[in-house]
Amino acid sequence: MTEASSPFAPRPDEEAVEAGTVFSPRFDADGLIVAIATDADSGEVLMVAHMNREALARTIATGEAWFWSRSRRRLWRKGEESGNALAVADMRVDCDQDAILIRVRVAGAGVACHTGYRSCFYRSVPLGATPTTDLALVFDETMPRARRPR
Amino acid sequence: MTEASSPFAPRPDEEAVEAGTVFSPRFDADGLIVAIATDADSGEVLMVAHMNREALARTIATGEAWFWSRSRRRLWRKGEESGNALAVADMRVDCDQDAILIRVRVAGAGVACHTGYRSCFYRSVPLGATPTTDLALVFDETMPRARRPR
Repeated sequence: MTEASSPFAPRPDEEAVEAGTVFSPRFDADGLIVAIATDADSGEVLMVAHMNREALARTIATGEAWFWSRSRRRLWRKGEESGNALAVADMRVDCDQDAILIRVRVAGAGVACHTGYRSCFYRSVPLGATPTTDLALVFDETMPRARRPR
Repeated sequence: MTEASSPFAPRPDEEAVEAGTVFSPRFDADGLIVAIATDADSGEVLMVAHMNREALARTIATGEAWFWSRSRRRLWRKGEESGNALAVADMRVDCDQDAILIRVRVAGAGVACHTGYRSCFYRSVPLGATPTTDLALVFDETMPRARRPR
């Protein structure tokens, strides 16, 4: 799906992008838009990935989350291998329409991260001091984890 | 702050990036990493922005959210004009360390979006049909809104 064959509206002026009802997502130079998935029930941020036009169109049409894998360079239905598909309860777009938010319910083992953790954000960054290369992340020991699904 | 003078560790191998405690955020070709801010109390996703190395270092050191404004091409302390600063309660990094999550409390009028809405995600994208250029966004009429702060 090219920009020319895109099912999404061309970008109107800034005022219309922010205050209007025209859906005109902004894809970057690589044809991607960032997508954030949160748990529809708890609100927890589960993962961040990217969608191209095709992935966004498929997600809207099917209600299942599709992404573009930058590492594998292919369209990817989340859970196609792990079983941890994401059923999309709600999709939102931000003010300047360069980020997508999906509220989801995770199928399978209920974990969204390929590492087996419920969320990809299983480590904290300590705050309050100028960072150095010695800064050590802290694992969230309370986060549910399944066996590594991939 | 250049890559050479970065206070962040160079990228180790993939296993160490995902399973280790070394903080080695991946900045893109423009020197940016995506940062998601959620409300520390409600969990609501408030905004998505970008940090460069300097913004990330300042956020860690000060506990206040700094970003890189791509449109204005400058470092930007959130709230410096609007008063809606973000006090960072917790920072996390994702599995492959190319996204930052901050849980924040919003100062001032308590709204995170420059449009005056509490969150930048004030419009829904209807699901369940193949998208066309006629697809119309739906405003969340329940979202708190202050006067446009900028």
